[in-house]
Amino acid sequence: MARQLYDLAGANPEFRFSPYCWRSRLALAHKGLDAEMVPWRFTEKDAIAFSGQGRVPVLVDGEHVVPDSWHIAVYLESAYPDAPSLFGGREAQALARFVNSWADSVQLPGLSRLVLVDIPSTLHECDLEYFHRSREQRFGMPVAAVCAERESAVEAFRASLAPLRLLLKNQPFVCGDAPAYADYIVFGGFQWARCVSDFPVLAGDDAVTQWLERMLEAAGPLARRMPALR
Amino acid sequence: MARQLYDLAGANPEFRFSPYCWRSRLALAHKGLDAEMVPWRFTEKDAIAFSGQGRVPVLVDGEHVVPDSWHIAVYLESAYPDAPSLFGGREAQALARFVNSWADSVQLPGLSRLVLVDIPSTLHECDLEYFHRSREQRFGMPVAAVCAERESAVEAFRASLAPLRLLLKNQPFVCGDAPAYADYIVFGGFQWARCVSDFPVLAGDDAVTQWLERMLEAAGPLARRMPALR
Repeated sequence: MARQLYDLAGANPEFRFSPYCWRSRLALAHKGLDAEMVPWRFTEKDAIAFSGQGRVPVLVDGEHVVPDSWHIAVYLESAYPDAPSLFGGREAQALARFVNSWADSVQLPGLSRLVLVDIPSTLHECDLEYFHRSREQRFGMPVAAVCAERESAVEAFRASLAPLRLLLKNQPFVCGDAPAYADYIVFGGFQWARCVSDFPVLAGDDAVTQWLERMLEAAGPLARRMPALR
Repeated sequence: MARQLYDLAGANPEFRFSPYCWRSRLALAHKGLDAEMVPWRFTEKDAIAFSGQGRVPVLVDGEHVVPDSWHIAVYLESAYPDAPSLFGGREAQALARFVNSWADSVQLPGLSRLVLVDIPSTLHECDLEYFHRSREQRFGMPVAAVCAERESAVEAFRASLAPLRLLLKNQPFVCGDAPAYADYIVFGGFQWARCVSDFPVLAGDDAVTQWLERMLEAAGPLARRMPALR
C-alpha cells in the first residue's frame, strides 16, 4: 500500500528543513514505517489541495489523508498500535501535547528570530515572493527585521529553554530513558534551525546541545547530513 | 499507620500557601490518602531535620520519609499502585517532569515578580527576617524590588503562559480529560499566588482562568477558601 509524506523542499529538492515535517519523519521511523518523502514547495498548493488545506506535512496512507504533524502522530499511534508507541498511553499523549504547545509557542518563535533571515537563500525561486510576503504578514515586519537583533536575542532564546535544560538534568530524553514523540517535537525545531542556518542557536556546553547530539545519533545519518544539502 | 505532610504555614497556622505543598496535598487527595497536615514555618529547621534537609513538603508515611514534592509524587505512585494513578504510566511520568520543569523555571519565577512582596504580611513574625534574607539572596535584590514593576510585568507573565493556553484550546486539563499530577503542579503555583495576594495575575477572560476555576472545583472547598485564612 502506497504511503507518502509531503515534505517541504528547498531549491535542492533533497533539502528538507520543515520543523513540522521532521516531527512526522521521525514519527514514521519510530513506527518502523516506510514512506515516500514527496518534495513540496510552499507555492504548490494545488498539489496538496486533496488534503483540504495548504500546508505540510500531509500524510497519505492508503486511503487515509492526514494533514498536520500532531494529527499525523495521533493517527500513526492509532493505526499502528502494535508498532513501538510514540506516546506510551493516553495520559502521556495528553502531556506530549503540552510539549507540542511549548515548542510551537516558545521554541519555534524564538528560533525564528535567530534563523528566519537565512531561509530565503535555501528556497527555490518560485517560493521567494510567497515566503517573504507570508512571513512579513505573520511577524508584522520584513524577514530581515525579524532577525535584526539576533546577536543579542540569542541570550533570551537560550534562557527560554530553561524548562528543557532543567528536565535534562534528570533524564536523558524528554520522554525519559529513550526518545519518543515529544523528543521529535523539540528536535524538529533545532533540526530546522541547523538545516537552514549556521547561526549558533545553542552554546556548545549546554545540556540541550548534548541532548541534540543524542537525537542526531538516533535520527540517523541523513538527519545529520541534511545541512550539507542546503 | 500514621501519615503526615509537613506543610508551610503562615501567621495563622491554618493558612497554607506553599506551591510545592499544594502539589503534594492534591497528590495525596488524588490517591485517596489521608494525612495530618502538620503546620511548619520556614525557621523550624529542627522539626524536619529527620528528613536530612530543611524544606517542605516532607511526607512521613509510616517508616518512609520523603522530602521534595516531585519525589513525594513518585513515591506515592509507587507505594500505592492500586489507587488512582497520578501519572498514567512511565512515559507520562517522564513527560509530567517537563511540566514540573516548566512550572519551576517559568511559572513560579514569573509569579514571584507579581506576588512575592505580599508574602511577609501573611507570615509569623518568627519567619520575617529569614524570609527577607533568603529571598534577597535568591533574587539578588530586596523583596519589594522584585515586585516593583509588577503592573507592567504582569503582561510578560501572562504571555509566558502561552504553552498552557495553547494546550487548553485542545483539552480541558493538562493531563487530558481529567486532572492528574501535572495539573496539580501548575495549580500549586496559581494557588500560592491567590493565597498570598489579591494581585490579578490572570485576566478574567483567559482560558487559564477557566482551567483554574475547574481545578478549584476539583480541589474542594478548603482550596477555594484558603485566601480567607490569610
